[in-house]
Amino acid sequence: MKADAFELTLLYDYYGEMLTERQRACFDLHYNQDLSLGEIAEELGISRQGVHDALVRTEAALRTMEQRLGCVSRARTLQRAYTDLAALAENLRTAGRDDFAVRILAAADLIKE
Amino acid sequence: MKADAFELTLLYDYYGEMLTERQRACFDLHYNQDLSLGEIAEELGISRQGVHDALVRTEAALRTMEQRLGCVSRARTLQRAYTDLAALAENLRTAGRDDFAVRILAAADLIKE
Repeated sequence: MKADAFELTLLYDYYGEMLTERQRACFDLHYNQDLSLGEIAEELGISRQGVHDALVRTEAALRTMEQRLGCVSRARTLQRAYTDLAALAENLRTAGRDDFAVRILAAADLIKE
Repeated sequence: MKADAFELTLLYDYYGEMLTERQRACFDLHYNQDLSLGEIAEELGISRQGVHDALVRTEAALRTMEQRLGCVSRARTLQRAYTDLAALAENLRTAGRDDFAVRILAAADLIKE
């Protein structure tokens, strides 16, 4: 289940607010606080199977939201745009055009989240 | 109900995929195709009250998703960044730096959806 933990926590950062309280609790304890299913079951007072099911449903919900809304994919593209603009600003500075560099960085800041 | 139709159709553009089929049908017929509640009721074979309730729930769902995910607000900020970068590219062209202008526009294109 943890094979793509990084991808899932990224999805969670974007879509966590859309989950139920129980889903958020299970996800956070498992992926962010690294508790086992048994430990989460004890913590939340539900069965181990209940934790497992909640995690499976949560992961499916996160992936479905990304398919439908594409926030994470979009964030990656914007990160690329930001990196390109920062490099461009640096080139302009080197070329003695600080005035343009400052304006590029101001626009690039709007892209950052 | 149509006071903020523009805002709602914008939210629908972003979050429509997250709605149920019935919600999408009611919303589309009312806001995009301008049918009355009675006409939609006839079209979908449900009661006028059912259409009304579906629209109220849909509007609430769209606003809740924007509160939680902020895609539309973010898109507005990115539009501003794009406009700033396009103006900057134009200024660089005027200053005889087409090379930089081209690179700025390439980065700006990544921002556009």
